[in-house]
Amino acid sequence: MVTHRIDQTAVIAALRGASPYIRLYKGKIFVIKAGGAVFRDLAGTRALIEQIAILHHLGIRVVLVHGGGPQLDEMQRSLGIEPQMVRGRRVTDDRSIDATTMVLNGLINTRILATCREAGIDAVGLSGVDAGLVRAIRRPPVHVEGESVDYGYVGDIVSIDTTVVRKQLDAGLMPVISPVSSDDTGVVLNINADTVAAAIGAALGAEKLILCTGAPGILERRDDPRSLVSFTDLAGLKRLEKSGSLEDGMLPKASAIEAAIRGGVRRVHVISFNARDSVLAEVFTNEGTGTMIVADVKALTPAEQHPEGVPKP
Amino acid sequence: MVTHRIDQTAVIAALRGASPYIRLYKGKIFVIKAGGAVFRDLAGTRALIEQIAILHHLGIRVVLVHGGGPQLDEMQRSLGIEPQMVRGRRVTDDRSIDATTMVLNGLINTRILATCREAGIDAVGLSGVDAGLVRAIRRPPVHVEGESVDYGYVGDIVSIDTTVVRKQLDAGLMPVISPVSSDDTGVVLNINADTVAAAIGAALGAEKLILCTGAPGILERRDDPRSLVSFTDLAGLKRLEKSGSLEDGMLPKASAIEAAIRGGVRRVHVISFNARDSVLAEVFTNEGTGTMIVADVKALTPAEQHPEGVPKP
Amino acid sequence: MVTHRIDQTAVIAALRGASPYIRLYKGKIFVIKAGGAVFRDLAGTRALIEQIAILHHLGIRVVLVHGGGPQLDEMQRSLGIEPQMVRGRRVTDDRSIDATTMVLNGLINTRILATCREAGIDAVGLSGVDAGLVRAIRRPPVHVEGESVDYGYVGDIVSIDTTVVRKQLDAGLMPVISPVSSDDTGVVLNINADTVAAAIGAALGAEKLILCTGAPGILERRDDPRSLVSFTDLAGLKRLEKSGSLEDGMLPKASAIEAAIRGGVRRVHVISFNARDSVLAEVFTNEGTGTMIVADVKALTPAEQHPEGVPKP
Amino acid sequence: MVTHRIDQTAVIAALRGASPYIRLYKGKIFVIKAGGAVFRDLAGTRALIEQIAILHHLGIRVVLVHGGGPQLDEMQRSLGIEPQMVRGRRVTDDRSIDATTMVLNGLINTRILATCREAGIDAVGLSGVDAGLVRAIRRPPVHVEGESVDYGYVGDIVSIDTTVVRKQLDAGLMPVISPVSSDDTGVVLNINADTVAAAIGAALGAEKLILCTGAPGILERRDDPRSLVSFTDLAGLKRLEKSGSLEDGMLPKASAIEAAIRGGVRRVHVISFNARDSVLAEVFTNEGTGTMIVADVKALTPAEQHPEGVPKP
Amino acid sequence: MVTHRIDQTAVIAALRGASPYIRLYKGKIFVIKAGGAVFRDLAGTRALIEQIAILHHLGIRVVLVHGGGPQLDEMQRSLGIEPQMVRGRRVTDDRSIDATTMVLNGLINTRILATCREAGIDAVGLSGVDAGLVRAIRRPPVHVEGESVDYGYVGDIVSIDTTVVRKQLDAGLMPVISPVSSDDTGVVLNINADTVAAAIGAALGAEKLILCTGAPGILERRDDPRSLVSFTDLAGLKRLEKSGSLEDGMLPKASAIEAAIRGGVRRVHVISFNARDSVLAEVFTNEGTGTMIVADVKALTPAEQHPEGVPKP
Amino acid sequence: MVTHRIDQTAVIAALRGASPYIRLYKGKIFVIKAGGAVFRDLAGTRALIEQIAILHHLGIRVVLVHGGGPQLDEMQRSLGIEPQMVRGRRVTDDRSIDATTMVLNGLINTRILATCREAGIDAVGLSGVDAGLVRAIRRPPVHVEGESVDYGYVGDIVSIDTTVVRKQLDAGLMPVISPVSSDDTGVVLNINADTVAAAIGAALGAEKLILCTGAPGILERRDDPRSLVSFTDLAGLKRLEKSGSLEDGMLPKASAIEAAIRGGVRRVHVISFNARDSVLAEVFTNEGTGTMIVADVKALTPAEQHPEGVPKP
Repeated sequence: MVTHRIDQTAVIAALRGASPYIRLYKGKIFVIKAGGAVFRDLAGTRALIEQIAILHHLGIRVVLVHGGGPQLDEMQRSLGIEPQMVRGRRVTDDRSIDATTMVLNGLINTRILATCREAGIDAVGLSGVDAGLVRAIRRPPVHVEGESVDYGYVGDIVSIDTTVVRKQLDAGLMPVISPVSSDDTGVVLNINADTVAAAIGAALGAEKLILCTGAPGILERRDDPRSLVSFTDLAGLKRLEKSGSLEDGMLPKASAIEAAIRGGVRRVHVISFNARDSVLAEVFTNEGTGTMIVADVKALTPAEQHPEGVPKP
Repeated sequence: MVTHRIDQTAVIAALRGASPYIRLYKGKIFVIKAGGAVFRDLAGTRALIEQIAILHHLGIRVVLVHGGGPQLDEMQRSLGIEPQMVRGRRVTDDRSIDATTMVLNGLINTRILATCREAGIDAVGLSGVDAGLVRAIRRPPVHVEGESVDYGYVGDIVSIDTTVVRKQLDAGLMPVISPVSSDDTGVVLNINADTVAAAIGAALGAEKLILCTGAPGILERRDDPRSLVSFTDLAGLKRLEKSGSLEDGMLPKASAIEAAIRGGVRRVHVISFNARDSVLAEVFTNEGTGTMIVADVKALTPAEQHPEGVPKP
Repeated sequence: MVTHRIDQTAVIAALRGASPYIRLYKGKIFVIKAGGAVFRDLAGTRALIEQIAILHHLGIRVVLVHGGGPQLDEMQRSLGIEPQMVRGRRVTDDRSIDATTMVLNGLINTRILATCREAGIDAVGLSGVDAGLVRAIRRPPVHVEGESVDYGYVGDIVSIDTTVVRKQLDAGLMPVISPVSSDDTGVVLNINADTVAAAIGAALGAEKLILCTGAPGILERRDDPRSLVSFTDLAGLKRLEKSGSLEDGMLPKASAIEAAIRGGVRRVHVISFNARDSVLAEVFTNEGTGTMIVADVKALTPAEQHPEGVPKP
Repeated sequence: MVTHRIDQTAVIAALRGASPYIRLYKGKIFVIKAGGAVFRDLAGTRALIEQIAILHHLGIRVVLVHGGGPQLDEMQRSLGIEPQMVRGRRVTDDRSIDATTMVLNGLINTRILATCREAGIDAVGLSGVDAGLVRAIRRPPVHVEGESVDYGYVGDIVSIDTTVVRKQLDAGLMPVISPVSSDDTGVVLNINADTVAAAIGAALGAEKLILCTGAPGILERRDDPRSLVSFTDLAGLKRLEKSGSLEDGMLPKASAIEAAIRGGVRRVHVISFNARDSVLAEVFTNEGTGTMIVADVKALTPAEQHPEGVPKP
Repeated sequence: MVTHRIDQTAVIAALRGASPYIRLYKGKIFVIKAGGAVFRDLAGTRALIEQIAILHHLGIRVVLVHGGGPQLDEMQRSLGIEPQMVRGRRVTDDRSIDATTMVLNGLINTRILATCREAGIDAVGLSGVDAGLVRAIRRPPVHVEGESVDYGYVGDIVSIDTTVVRKQLDAGLMPVISPVSSDDTGVVLNINADTVAAAIGAALGAEKLILCTGAPGILERRDDPRSLVSFTDLAGLKRLEKSGSLEDGMLPKASAIEAAIRGGVRRVHVISFNARDSVLAEVFTNEGTGTMIVADVKALTPAEQHPEGVPKP
Repeated sequence: MVTHRIDQTAVIAALRGASPYIRLYKGKIFVIKAGGAVFRDLAGTRALIEQIAILHHLGIRVVLVHGGGPQLDEMQRSLGIEPQMVRGRRVTDDRSIDATTMVLNGLINTRILATCREAGIDAVGLSGVDAGLVRAIRRPPVHVEGESVDYGYVGDIVSIDTTVVRKQLDAGLMPVISPVSSDDTGVVLNINADTVAAAIGAALGAEKLILCTGAPGILERRDDPRSLVSFTDLAGLKRLEKSGSLEDGMLPKASAIEAAIRGGVRRVHVISFNARDSVLAEVFTNEGTGTMIVADVKALTPAEQHPEGVPKP
């Protein structure tokens, strides 16, 4: 056990500060999604997992969903395949689906589990393939600029059965989930991690879905961190989309956010994994660090607006 | 819910600092004993209960035992009885035992419960009389300086049955216990609160017994706060007793401490309720604030010495 | 264990007689309310508790609510306060609420628990303050004969949360409840014991609410015991009220009875604690001893009328 | 539900008298064995079952074992078989074992269940054949006066597996057990009901085994009811046996009593089913009506001797 | 344990073949009714029970209901009573109801239990009399050809309370049920076993009711086994009835089948107990051996028609 | 659901044959280990998983441990690393441990899970890294022919904590386990799959450990299938080892077998995955197909020798 030598008064003040949140979130489900960039090195992995360990030991039921884009790019290239993205989704041929499985279910998932172990979290690796968690079908070819594009082994979610996830949570184990899924006949399919995280969050009725991204949150003006939107709702998100504020990578995230909230997730947070301790700051402090999205701002009572990241006018 | 506006970095750092302790103490039983002086006004009561609320919400199973000496003095005097102490125990005649019951089981216990309510703790008031918790017998007269002194309705503990306490803890309720007890025929008897706290702590196999006193801890030289003993064991306690370091009020506490440790309590802490946030500091920081007593210092591994209040040589 | 030497044939006959009631009431909740006069001496306390012990050991889930008027009068006077009643409610100033807490939560509650112990009942003392049992607000000043009267620390019930009571019952413990309650901020408030007993009975869906009073039951003509009303319903109660039959002390009881029945209590009984074994007689014999009130006599089947205290025409 | 009109004071006094026993026996197992003579007519059956219903509804876990000698004699004769007893055991040929099964498992068991139904007891009929309750082997031929006697389908108990009995008790059902048993290959065998009751009592660790017989208990001088032995132990039983006090029918009972007590049954009672309410009187009154046998009188404390049927000198 | 030496490849192939059914039926309730003819000798009893043992050990919750007509005829005659049937129901006088109880609840039920024991099934014998399983009333006299016929102790079912059956199943015990029942006052009544099996099947929401008869199933032309109806529904059954195809003994069975299906049993099977392994063949093979009846053939999906006994056109 | 059309009589006969085994093995734990060669193509994977599905649906608690040697060779080569084996263990450098994780935890584990899904098994993928299942340390360098060989990221088992495995089994989920493990700091280590399977089998107290290999079992003379050892014990295994019968690949297996049996596994089976339905044949037929090893043949009763694969002399 590593203990940190810090100022005693600060510890106590902080515990007082965090106490209402601890009480509020005990036993609640948080789905945290982190992209492959988070896990590029051990330091980044540890930085996230140590934060999650604190949530876990405080009694929050965390479900971690991970991606693996950069690692997959690298793997494909080392196998001589040039990664090809169409409308933000990876075209996945025969050899690529094997690479995807190896990188996501094998390399990254295991690395996270190993770091969980170091952090004292009893974690279990899952993917959409385990015990019927994600039922998917192969995506039909799409027409892009007059041409038919076959995504190959890319899946669309048909339904989610969270039984296996709940069994892990009920047994005190933290599920670490890769988005790789399959159809009913066992054909393995690649699905976007944000999409899977949103669907699982909705199916679990999660209190929060936290998306850890490279950006500080949702920005009104791309590349201008001062234009961070601290707090918005589905209508606001739609407005941002229409005004062209959302950059390419953010568009599928916006769909996932909407799906999560419509499916019953109470709050979605978009935060930067680069900001130090951003998960803890978002959960345990008033100001938060990124963007919080709810269904409808007007439906919140003043008390409800308070707990998290709500900017004062 | 009141939230505290504090520096965000400090909160996170503090959570990291407290995290190992949170993990260590989850589900453990802490018996906290606080004398009547703590509850003299609402501010003092709140200062303690707010700290306990944090322990409670973090999943520590707290049992609070309270005394009520000053309030009882006052009550006796308002009824025209002059309080009389012999060897640190209150002589308790017929009218005084009623006064004791009223002050301890009535006034103080209820005030604590009311403050628990404000702090969001589901608490239940108990005394040694409830459901056979403390089985006592009336203390026989003692000979002091050639004279026989009848303590009246003062009890000695015969046995403890913690079933009723465990049932409350298992139901998620925090027991707040007055030391007033009774014999098998229902005669109500007054017992020292330190003695009751130590006996309940031992019977519960508590992780910690925390005695909140007016002094900063055990002092080698009375009235010299710089002579605070941070860490000792039963042999050290005996040495302090022999050397005359322990003042009058501390002698019965020393007996209680010994009884608790011999009965199976892992660590006893003597702290000052006057020091701000002293309970949280003792539990969640490395340095602690008062005196920690274990069975045998030499039997501890270096790792075991670490977690709490261990002075560096 | 004290055994009673009685005629063997009588025991057997009695068991046969009581058997249908035993079967009928096993596992049902009875709320029994007894005023302070019952507990004026040990003999009176024992007389009631011994009867309750029999109910308890037969598997009936008894909840005992007690008052403490006479003891409180005495206490106030010994503190130099003259008790003042307005419309049957005690005006309760600053010092009086402390006295109330001491007398009800301290003295009387503990005496009952001590007697329960003697009788082999595992009992736990509660008050409206414990674990949010009674949520009350301070009663606003009322206008009496052109003058504004501030009742002081007198409460009105906002809501009842019987969780803490059910947890005790489920753990096999008998709750002994003082009516002292508090508001959400922990301000202690005095509430009438009949009112609290009725509200708790309704919230628990009790089978019976038994009010132990100084009178033999409800009388048509005050002070004429021959005018005892053995059996009536809410309409009958209203008629008695209109006809002026109900004396002062009985008026608030009538409100409590109505509240209990409207809230779901099946039968309310008003009996005399002076009549020997009146609780047992009311529960286990056909004739009963006092007044039984149901929602609507006409809605009862003949079989339902039979079991308890229904006089033959 | 039939209610009995009896004197109210007597009911209350009786409840007080029975109360310590009710408390003492709640949840304990009583094995009651009644011979076929008890069930000769509906009146006799009802007389016993009504008493058992009271025990059952008071929370005692009753197991009823029945015989059926007289009915079997009659049946054998109506089938043209002359009943033949050797050393108190029935010689049971091919047709007789069918008759035994029909009379015990069919006629008598069903009659008892039907009466249980009338009395509001949820009862389940079992025999030694059900779910491996009694494992028996066929008794080898014995030599009587120089001749070999083949008992035919008569069994000796090899072992008892009370799982099926405990499952009924745990499900709140009262087992009514016929002594007909079988070997491992399913050959049905006749066993003496006293023997089966004693073995089941021992295997269940019963609090009491109550043998309902035609005699008022064990007599020192046959046919002299004034010579009733109220209280004895295994040594006393042996003395009675040696002195020739025990009549023929009582000898196998003496073996059963000894087996039960050596196997762990705390008290065995021999009472008359002819005496009115003899079961209730034995259980709930101080004097009892028949003979009580314990392991060793000298090992009892005075308090232990008290509860049941101990005559004052 | 007896093991059977069979061809290894066949075993494996068979397990593969049976596997989908095993998975399909695990935990489901099958009510199997077998008439007295099945139990006429040990060989027949064993042939059925061994098949049931396989179902039981595969995790199917089997409830066995038995009749006993031929044995009862024989018994009545041996007692000098000539069996008399009116409209397929046995007239049951005073002595006959005793004979019925002895033969069904005694002889046959016990024989089945003994064979269960040999087969390693933990079975418990029940009848409609146990723990209120079947509530019946005595059938009123009927007018047949101008004459009033009193059936005597023949019952009609008022209601079924399967609590006692479910408790056995939940405890892992197989109920073996005789149709003898009683009214609320404990008067024992004879009821047709098909009727009882159908009512219990409906009350349990059984997956299957399997009627083991002397015929190969339902025949379109009596005595022509080639006219076996493999698969039909309630409308088909009605047509067969109208066309006169159903022989006398089959008419009450048709009523039972209809009652079962209308009451919620999914499939009823009529098979021959004479055909070797007919129960297993009906359950585990595609072709089945007898007649399967569902509510409405047209409401089945092709997949649902598949599993059992569906003839190809 | 696919149903197989097979001869009806054969199905029934087979069910009878398999029935004693089904009863014997219900609820027991079988650890099945299959090497990478089994999973080289979908057909091989399906062949095994379909057999396991039958065991699983019959109520056997199967734990599947897989290897992946051939796939790993291929992967290493495609990454430009030449696989290097020393004493049967793979030297595993930095890049190779990543490849190992990808192939075992990613590719093969996921393929098995996908096939489980097709077969209707709710399966969860685990590796030694999940929730502290395998605690390993890095193997120290060994001296081979005067040279120090560093195995790199190869682990030795320190201890096994099967909590996570038992939680899956108790939740009705089948664990599919990759042998990749880690040390306490989260360094990922490669361990031989036979070793892991044996250690897990011992820690679970498994009924059987079944090793699926390329050979038909243990052979006395290499490459002579007619020299198959059907049945032996630890002493026999030692004899075979000394006589040089065990080929290179079999030596580490022999250690695993010994470790499993000494650790408490009752029977170890070595079978060929090439033989059709070899797992089912080994489990459900008398003759078995491969080699069965027990602790001590002489300690078996004749009955115990019977159930599996014991050749008659």
